[in-house]
Amino acid sequence: MDTNKKPIYPVEPWNITETEFRVENNYRNETTFALSNGYIGTRGTFEEAYDFDIDTGLEGNFINGFYESEEIRYGEANFGSPLHSQSLLNLPNAKKIRLYAGGEEFHIQKGTVSDYSRVLRMRDGILERSLVYTTPGGKQMRIQISRFVSFRWKNIMEIRYCVTPLNFSGELTFVTGIEGNVENHTRKTNPIVDYGPFGRRLEPTAVKADGDSIYYEAVTRNSRLTAACGCMHHLEGAPYEVSACKEELAVSLTYTAAAERGETVCLEKYICYSSDLDMDREELETYTGKMLRCAAAAGYAQAEKEQISYMNRYWEKADVVVKGDEALQQGIRFNLFHIMQSAGRDGRTGMGAKGLSGEGYEGHYFWDTEMYVFPVFVYTDPEIAAHLLDYRYGTLDKARARARILGHDKGALYPWRTINGEEASTYYPLGTAQYHINGDISYALCLYLDVTKDKEFFLEKGAEMLIEMARVWADVGSFAECKGGKYCICDVTGPDEYNVLVDNNFYTNLLARESLRAALKAVRYLREQEPERYESLAGKLDFAWEETDLWDKIIENMYFPYDEKRQVYPLDDGFMMRKPWDESKIPPEKRAWLYENYHPLFIMRHRMSKQADAILGMYLYSNLFTEEELKRNYDFYQEVTLHHSSLSTCIFGIVACEIGYYDEAYTYFSQSARMDLDDYHNNFYAGIHAANMAGTWQAVVNGFAGLRTNDGTLRFKPYLPEKWEGYQFCIGYQGSTLKVEIGRNGADFTLLEGKPAVFYVNGRACSIKEEGGTWHEEI
Amino acid sequence: MDTNKKPIYPVEPWNITETEFRVENNYRNETTFALSNGYIGTRGTFEEAYDFDIDTGLEGNFINGFYESEEIRYGEANFGSPLHSQSLLNLPNAKKIRLYAGGEEFHIQKGTVSDYSRVLRMRDGILERSLVYTTPGGKQMRIQISRFVSFRWKNIMEIRYCVTPLNFSGELTFVTGIEGNVENHTRKTNPIVDYGPFGRRLEPTAVKADGDSIYYEAVTRNSRLTAACGCMHHLEGAPYEVSACKEELAVSLTYTAAAERGETVCLEKYICYSSDLDMDREELETYTGKMLRCAAAAGYAQAEKEQISYMNRYWEKADVVVKGDEALQQGIRFNLFHIMQSAGRDGRTGMGAKGLSGEGYEGHYFWDTEMYVFPVFVYTDPEIAAHLLDYRYGTLDKARARARILGHDKGALYPWRTINGEEASTYYPLGTAQYHINGDISYALCLYLDVTKDKEFFLEKGAEMLIEMARVWADVGSFAECKGGKYCICDVTGPDEYNVLVDNNFYTNLLARESLRAALKAVRYLREQEPERYESLAGKLDFAWEETDLWDKIIENMYFPYDEKRQVYPLDDGFMMRKPWDESKIPPEKRAWLYENYHPLFIMRHRMSKQADAILGMYLYSNLFTEEELKRNYDFYQEVTLHHSSLSTCIFGIVACEIGYYDEAYTYFSQSARMDLDDYHNNFYAGIHAANMAGTWQAVVNGFAGLRTNDGTLRFKPYLPEKWEGYQFCIGYQGSTLKVEIGRNGADFTLLEGKPAVFYVNGRACSIKEEGGTWHEEI
Repeated sequence: MDTNKKPIYPVEPWNITETEFRVENNYRNETTFALSNGYIGTRGTFEEAYDFDIDTGLEGNFINGFYESEEIRYGEANFGSPLHSQSLLNLPNAKKIRLYAGGEEFHIQKGTVSDYSRVLRMRDGILERSLVYTTPGGKQMRIQISRFVSFRWKNIMEIRYCVTPLNFSGELTFVTGIEGNVENHTRKTNPIVDYGPFGRRLEPTAVKADGDSIYYEAVTRNSRLTAACGCMHHLEGAPYEVSACKEELAVSLTYTAAAERGETVCLEKYICYSSDLDMDREELETYTGKMLRCAAAAGYAQAEKEQISYMNRYWEKADVVVKGDEALQQGIRFNLFHIMQSAGRDGRTGMGAKGLSGEGYEGHYFWDTEMYVFPVFVYTDPEIAAHLLDYRYGTLDKARARARILGHDKGALYPWRTINGEEASTYYPLGTAQYHINGDISYALCLYLDVTKDKEFFLEKGAEMLIEMARVWADVGSFAECKGGKYCICDVTGPDEYNVLVDNNFYTNLLARESLRAALKAVRYLREQEPERYESLAGKLDFAWEETDLWDKIIENMYFPYDEKRQVYPLDDGFMMRKPWDESKIPPEKRAWLYENYHPLFIMRHRMSKQADAILGMYLYSNLFTEEELKRNYDFYQEVTLHHSSLSTCIFGIVACEIGYYDEAYTYFSQSARMDLDDYHNNFYAGIHAANMAGTWQAVVNGFAGLRTNDGTLRFKPYLPEKWEGYQFCIGYQGSTLKVEIGRNGADFTLLEGKPAVFYVNGRACSIKEEGGTWHEEI
Repeated sequence: MDTNKKPIYPVEPWNITETEFRVENNYRNETTFALSNGYIGTRGTFEEAYDFDIDTGLEGNFINGFYESEEIRYGEANFGSPLHSQSLLNLPNAKKIRLYAGGEEFHIQKGTVSDYSRVLRMRDGILERSLVYTTPGGKQMRIQISRFVSFRWKNIMEIRYCVTPLNFSGELTFVTGIEGNVENHTRKTNPIVDYGPFGRRLEPTAVKADGDSIYYEAVTRNSRLTAACGCMHHLEGAPYEVSACKEELAVSLTYTAAAERGETVCLEKYICYSSDLDMDREELETYTGKMLRCAAAAGYAQAEKEQISYMNRYWEKADVVVKGDEALQQGIRFNLFHIMQSAGRDGRTGMGAKGLSGEGYEGHYFWDTEMYVFPVFVYTDPEIAAHLLDYRYGTLDKARARARILGHDKGALYPWRTINGEEASTYYPLGTAQYHINGDISYALCLYLDVTKDKEFFLEKGAEMLIEMARVWADVGSFAECKGGKYCICDVTGPDEYNVLVDNNFYTNLLARESLRAALKAVRYLREQEPERYESLAGKLDFAWEETDLWDKIIENMYFPYDEKRQVYPLDDGFMMRKPWDESKIPPEKRAWLYENYHPLFIMRHRMSKQADAILGMYLYSNLFTEEELKRNYDFYQEVTLHHSSLSTCIFGIVACEIGYYDEAYTYFSQSARMDLDDYHNNFYAGIHAANMAGTWQAVVNGFAGLRTNDGTLRFKPYLPEKWEGYQFCIGYQGSTLKVEIGRNGADFTLLEGKPAVFYVNGRACSIKEEGGTWHEEI
């Protein structure tokens, strides 16, 4: 990780601006300027749809949850290894618009470009490009293009493409279409994946043009899913003619306009993506037409206003203001913008570790969602959080089936990586063995229930999830006589992917216990407070009250590895026995890529850690540990952690704050905040690192401001980094929305709306009764 | 495992007889009647080369070490996973002879067969078939066929095919050829293998016929190895004409003889297999011609005599005579016959877990050779043992390269499974993680050196192997403060394949320590006694004397898991923590096939063991444990071991003997002795279980007779099973060959040849000074 990079883009509080097109930056910038609404994802590629090579760009357009499958091959297959892959599929490109001035094509690499800018307006959720283009033949025109993916209608994205002839009058031609000859970049974006998808995976089933509309529908070869894509157009500013062209893998309309010098001609393109994951295949075309007519009727200008309005409301709740460091400010907003736009919002889809910004990790959903991104939404936009939980509830049956595959007679085990709810990990030591996914989802669910007090969710879905996950925890381990009768969980992999198939991973055991505790609390509550609900759920799950005896016993007797001499919690039972790690023996160019350069046995044999693991558990349940304990463990893990995962530094930073290691905390924070914006990992082309992006928010709110709710109360322990003037953010907790402003003069808490707020600052009880009321606290 | 089967073949002391051809037994019987000389392997298929389907038979002809490669695919490949397979390849069938009587084909399923017998004459190393055949048209003839694979010339096998017309005179036609259209049965014989080889892998490069000779040469598609196969013929008993036929994938000669009623016509077929693993490809044809002329000049009758003479000499040294149980006697000899004929003898080849009798395990060599088969040869035919060690020495450079892949800067790590010396295991938790292979080879080497005192081998090869293997042991672990500074070896898999990637596997740590001890002894001896040799070897290996300081420290401080309460050595650090195994939850039909029916995590999470593991270590080094210790550990492992490997019961039987659990020992022995002959595992079709076959010998010699040499002296602790009258065997030790006879009246030891013998019986010192002298000992 190269953290000494200079800012790639100009430092601005709300915008990311590309001031010059350079082909060598293109692939990365396509991710920077990617737009999404959690359903449609579209990379920041140009309307011209240049035919770049595999190292230069990827025309990526995605629908959340839409995947292709390939048969997976193994040297030797294990029972329960997934046999069919799930890869987020690159869909037909409906952004495509090519422009010709009297037969000369607008091509950024051929003519002369000046006044170039491409701006991601994060505050508004709009991407704009503006330039003056002179054709080789001398025709000069101003081109202004803006686009957004709609937060109002999940299936819609819109483009406004405006051209003003500056030195000529004459024919302007827009060829606007849908290009179906698209492929994933598997070898580039997922080099260790053997099975694809390679080549074109979509077979067209309908290619149509009618008036101002075009329609393209196609089915995947193996997963047999159908994607539909339609466009409707509106041209203003000049008289024009339109003609259609249908090809085997493409459909387009050609708008030929008689433009006047100085007069702006605008083509508005309304785009609708949908798939038969949401409706019957037969309905897709009708639905597309309906959605496009709605969008066109509202018009681009109106839709743009609504987009801005939606975004402004989002920022009101979610913005983190940093006074005194504009670069970090920009980094934080970039991160918040990307995670906000990447989360599935329909309850049927989750959120990929790369959002919908690229093909990295095959578009899979991991624990990153629940443990890194989810807390941001819980406190700032709980509706999105609820939808993400809906997705997990919707795949509970598949998690039940998976638990049976793993030999559990009862309960549910969520997959380590997935799109459709089935396990997609092809290497179980780093996949299915990460049982902590059940603890992560349970943690997120409990956090949601605590912060929102959403009783309906608890009754309808949450309790069932908690019980089913708890059942697997109650079956996976056993009380070991050799460990004083304590409950031991063997052969799991914790978050740390350099220590696999270990016994008694501290993080796993901790989350297992707390997961069981939550389930126990849930069933006790139900039985006492909602007996009918209890009976009905117990009947559905064939749940016997006696099961809770075992849960109780496990909670009381969970085993944790402990090093008496150092008084720390080792990562797992065997961690202290492993060989000391000698980084000097590893050539620098191989250090961050251990699995690419070393045998797994070499890696797991050494006493080092890829990422926050035990420390993450201690952060999540910091109320269960003394500050001294946290310090000892932090010091210990600080030495053995390599931070080879983007999920690591933000967590270390938060714990560093908690124990007063503020300088280290600030260093960690700096490494997190602009990690993607400045491409520290040199792989931003493959997509965002959503977990770290969200970790930045946590680093400010849970780190510097010290927010904790893990004992069921709202607590702060504010700290102002020395380099900052101040910072502020908003959070919602149990019906109160608070603005928190921390500055040189202390911390100010304002109740923006909702119920009277009670909270603690550095342990002191505080309260605000009235909306608009403020509490000041010296720090 | 079904151990209640009745004998499949008549119980006879020296023969295995098939009295009736039944197609449903064919595939299995092809293994029963397989012949080999350690270089050529040929299954017991008929000369007629019937076109059976994939469930009925496999025309298998192999050359030891000759393999085809395929690209191996992995869902996600790990660094260091083998990318190209090695599969013992099915070669052109040169046994093929079809017989016609006046145009009517001899076909066992079409005409009438009587007086049928097929006999494996184990004492002589000859396979014979005899029958009277009546064609559908009524022609009756006696057919007598015998064959053997020569122990004199490794490239040669011979067939004598005799026909006597019983009720007619007329034309007898022999179509004798080489069939090149052959394939492996990968899906049947190695169902979990993804990568083949599938289809025909050999492209013919020469197909020739000349007089009485034919020649077929072909190259593999991927491994680019060339196999050559030639035949020469001699027909007697009638005037005849011969004509040749060459096809794309076959070549044959047609002998048309004018046979007289009652007169026997014999066709002798001399077959030569060779490959460019032994010589330049250009030499193959000349070499084949030369070898065939030699064989033909000697003639079948003379070669048969030499074959019988070789075999008789083998049995003199190796036979185990059991008086009082003919079925066990037959089983023991069947086992000894197959392991003897399966071992590579040219120093360039090893011995497959299935010998050369079938395609199971892709023909790979495993630890089975060193730990199960090798001790039999060491005591009975040490020349074969030396050749097997030569193979390992010959692949030492590849083991060095493999150690680098695993991150060891020095030393050599042998592959878990291989043909050409490179690792061929595609699943490292059950493959490369079995570091104990280094300990196994070291054990075998030390056993060889102790038993034979072959100083030349030690100086030329053995010392180098010991040092290189020791260096990996000295690098793989570390001294762990948390274990009192003891040397711990993490993340290995022991012999037990149900407990993978464990820490401090008892067996591994024990063999590592003893391996280091042997290496230390070797370098000390060299330095003191052979300083020039020492300097030269140290120079070659860049070996510094200081390395031995670490070895010394490891030997003194090796860690072993220990359960204080039970006072036993658990399998590994985590074994006692695992969930108790409840066999009742496993449906009976799935019990022996856990990996086919359960996820690896389910299997490794339970406290049970597939096979002898710690117990094997305690047997090998029984001198380091008290009888009480052995008892406690035996009792413990007896309860948790499922014996799902054919390598298990023989070891438990030996230890049971040592601790006086004779009834259990006898039960285990019974399960081992006829395991293959009666096909307890129902998979004999895929090849012999060489390890268990050899384990039978060990069960008698090391078990009942209590032979131990592990403290550097020859010790016996004889026991006569109640059901037996007596038993006898021979062993060679340090220059003395002893016959051991144990009967109701005690044990008699006779010095057959060699140096005066000193040995211990039940701890009492005994000695025989003169050849022919006998020592009697009451037991």
